[in-house]
Amino acid sequence: MAFDDPVAELSAYASHPSVSADSSFAQGMTGARHYVTSLLRELGFSVETIETPMHPILLATRGDPSWPHLVVYGHYDVQPADPLDLWTSPPFEPEVRGDRLYGRGAADNKGPQIVHMTALARVLQRNPELPLRITYLIEGEEEVGSPSFKGFLERYKDRLDAEMVLVSDTGSPNPEQIVITTGLRGLVALEARFKGPAMDLHSGVHGGPVFNPLRAVSEVCASLHDEEGNVAVPGFYDEVSVPADWERDELLKMPQTEEEYLGFIGAPGFKPSSGYNSLESVRFGPTLEFNGIGGGYQGEGSKTVIPSEAFVKITCRLVPNQKEGVIASLVKAAIEERCPPEVSVEVSVTGGGDPYVVIPPGKPGSSGEESPLLKRAFSAAEQAIAQSFGSSPIFMREGGSIPIIGDLKEIAGLDSLLIGLFTPADNLHAPDESFHLGIMEKATTAFESIFEDLAGPT
Amino acid sequence: MAFDDPVAELSAYASHPSVSADSSFAQGMTGARHYVTSLLRELGFSVETIETPMHPILLATRGDPSWPHLVVYGHYDVQPADPLDLWTSPPFEPEVRGDRLYGRGAADNKGPQIVHMTALARVLQRNPELPLRITYLIEGEEEVGSPSFKGFLERYKDRLDAEMVLVSDTGSPNPEQIVITTGLRGLVALEARFKGPAMDLHSGVHGGPVFNPLRAVSEVCASLHDEEGNVAVPGFYDEVSVPADWERDELLKMPQTEEEYLGFIGAPGFKPSSGYNSLESVRFGPTLEFNGIGGGYQGEGSKTVIPSEAFVKITCRLVPNQKEGVIASLVKAAIEERCPPEVSVEVSVTGGGDPYVVIPPGKPGSSGEESPLLKRAFSAAEQAIAQSFGSSPIFMREGGSIPIIGDLKEIAGLDSLLIGLFTPADNLHAPDESFHLGIMEKATTAFESIFEDLAGPT
Repeated sequence: MAFDDPVAELSAYASHPSVSADSSFAQGMTGARHYVTSLLRELGFSVETIETPMHPILLATRGDPSWPHLVVYGHYDVQPADPLDLWTSPPFEPEVRGDRLYGRGAADNKGPQIVHMTALARVLQRNPELPLRITYLIEGEEEVGSPSFKGFLERYKDRLDAEMVLVSDTGSPNPEQIVITTGLRGLVALEARFKGPAMDLHSGVHGGPVFNPLRAVSEVCASLHDEEGNVAVPGFYDEVSVPADWERDELLKMPQTEEEYLGFIGAPGFKPSSGYNSLESVRFGPTLEFNGIGGGYQGEGSKTVIPSEAFVKITCRLVPNQKEGVIASLVKAAIEERCPPEVSVEVSVTGGGDPYVVIPPGKPGSSGEESPLLKRAFSAAEQAIAQSFGSSPIFMREGGSIPIIGDLKEIAGLDSLLIGLFTPADNLHAPDESFHLGIMEKATTAFESIFEDLAGPT
Repeated sequence: MAFDDPVAELSAYASHPSVSADSSFAQGMTGARHYVTSLLRELGFSVETIETPMHPILLATRGDPSWPHLVVYGHYDVQPADPLDLWTSPPFEPEVRGDRLYGRGAADNKGPQIVHMTALARVLQRNPELPLRITYLIEGEEEVGSPSFKGFLERYKDRLDAEMVLVSDTGSPNPEQIVITTGLRGLVALEARFKGPAMDLHSGVHGGPVFNPLRAVSEVCASLHDEEGNVAVPGFYDEVSVPADWERDELLKMPQTEEEYLGFIGAPGFKPSSGYNSLESVRFGPTLEFNGIGGGYQGEGSKTVIPSEAFVKITCRLVPNQKEGVIASLVKAAIEERCPPEVSVEVSVTGGGDPYVVIPPGKPGSSGEESPLLKRAFSAAEQAIAQSFGSSPIFMREGGSIPIIGDLKEIAGLDSLLIGLFTPADNLHAPDESFHLGIMEKATTAFESIFEDLAGPT
């Protein structure tokens, strides 16, 4: 049986260098896709390879149309491995050291996929006719922003007449404490380019009357937060919903204090927005963040120049019920209005996605109209994780964004159960990425229970 | 006689690629130095080559110690010629087209040196025993900031027991209107580095409590000017002297309106500091200019990062009687005080020089104690330029800085007569640099008169 040694399976899967961002890794992409295709076929799935403008998506199905229908999402692509010299062992020659398997993609997202599949293999070995219809969606562009996924959903939504999605592509604080992610922040990305003089000018010969575009970018950016640390854009907070009491209570269970968090970040201090402590503001508050500011001389020493141009790259993180289109317009308008008249500005909106939230069935605020499978999945996951890991999962929103989760909701009407299997120690997107073998084993046991529960009589 | 054809002399001088910034041009530096040495010897000078850590300085002398003693300054090095593909003819193969000679260094500073020498050659031909002692200082590091010049002055100041310096390394507005530069702004260069989190952070996973160093650099920079466009640093203007009425009157003679200046700059508008119009503020007002701001993602598209660091490079231009050391301390203290406590900042002062001003003898505010030679030189220059160019020179400060002029004053006690022979159309430091042959001819005639006058009985 192929899944007798899941660490070996993961090692084989992670040995394919499936870097989606770099076309010189085309062979690695193909290798990983073929490998996971063979695993799915071994589990009895019928696998289709759906072409996209970039990397194909695998659409795999098993089961009878009359059975409850679950979608499982994963991605076979990985982040680039640079800088290579910081890896202890080569990124695409997976190696077990201590209680971890090291290799690019081990945790993000190949390990969690092997967990799901191994659990399913064990369940199917005991009950080959498990009455659970499963559709696997495994894409190859997650690490480059899933540009083809939304179009794919539009085309294939008829095939997704399911009740929920299962995803393990989020994090948990440590190998003992699992988090079920109940919300993801939305995103708005903007770029503003400020233009002053027609050309770079000598700051001695012309300094005085010329309004430096670096002064404009500074003044506009400085105006976008108030002294309390809140975003100073009219209307920005209008649709923000406050977190429920149970959400604040869940957060208190997280095994990290504010002091520990500050120590990890290594800054002189924190400045969360009004009404939130630092741990809350990441999860419940929206942000307006400067990701890059530039203009003028960037090299060593000094150069006496008044630059012609300056730019700022901004992303806002959104919380329910902010809408990406509304926030993009508000921020764009604020920048345009506040740009001094001696400088011109062009603001472009370069991307976005709405926030996503799923209230666990039965918690205050839940509708009670969730699909039977989703209700059962939350309850099964809570029990299985408590049993396997020794402590109940924490139900908690996280600060990041996974736009495809919102897309699955919007286009296919599907809510997601997000069970986090990687931890901060796993070094995602960094050298020496690894997956914790203890989590792997316990999570596999938990998912056996979950799959069996989902297939039970409703 | 070597100076019968000054255009040919300039062409030969400019054919040596004497780029001081690039060590691969060592041969061009030597060639230019040998060439100008031969010219000076032909004029009867005794020439010494003074070694420095980088490029040698030529120290050349003629005349009797009992005669009035004039120092003439010039530089044999030139700016790099890149981008080469924007030149109509090769930068180091000088070519006459129309009324200009094109080539790197033609205007900055080889052409003006040929003007001086040709005038001197003609005067000496008429009167070989011209009773004027002249010390030539021709350096090879002007285009890289004259790092060796101050040390040279300290070592050789006994040889500079002169009464004044003559320099032609400043500008005039057009070939009909010559400016005698009466002041240069001083300079303070600073760099501030802001540090927030210990490492770059994911702006989704950690955005909220973290004080982004790009926000810190924006807020601090935005605080450094007020709404009227003035520098908002306590004490910054304390020592600033207002220009004399005659200086404002002289400015009215400049053949450029504010509208024309704005059209040249190509910005939507001007914002001079309080009390000055745009043409005045360049010459009479101090500035605090952002030469470069950077931090976070600088590439295409977006990257969801909270950067660990941000920087700003600042230069202030100073006017009499601001002192570089005082202003550097005030700006440094303001940045440090205004940096939010959640971010740390380190401010370093990277360079500077005091402003320089020489009040033309006889103008209101002049001391009356100027050296006889300086008095005579200003008067002789005014008359000779009026006669040769058909209009009197304008006596005007300019916005740029030439630190060696201040050094000559401070170390050798020498004021300078700065007669500007290049114009904005000469493309200094840019492709297709050229020198105007009409200016060359008229200025040579003017300098003949000036040298003869200086040698006359005092």
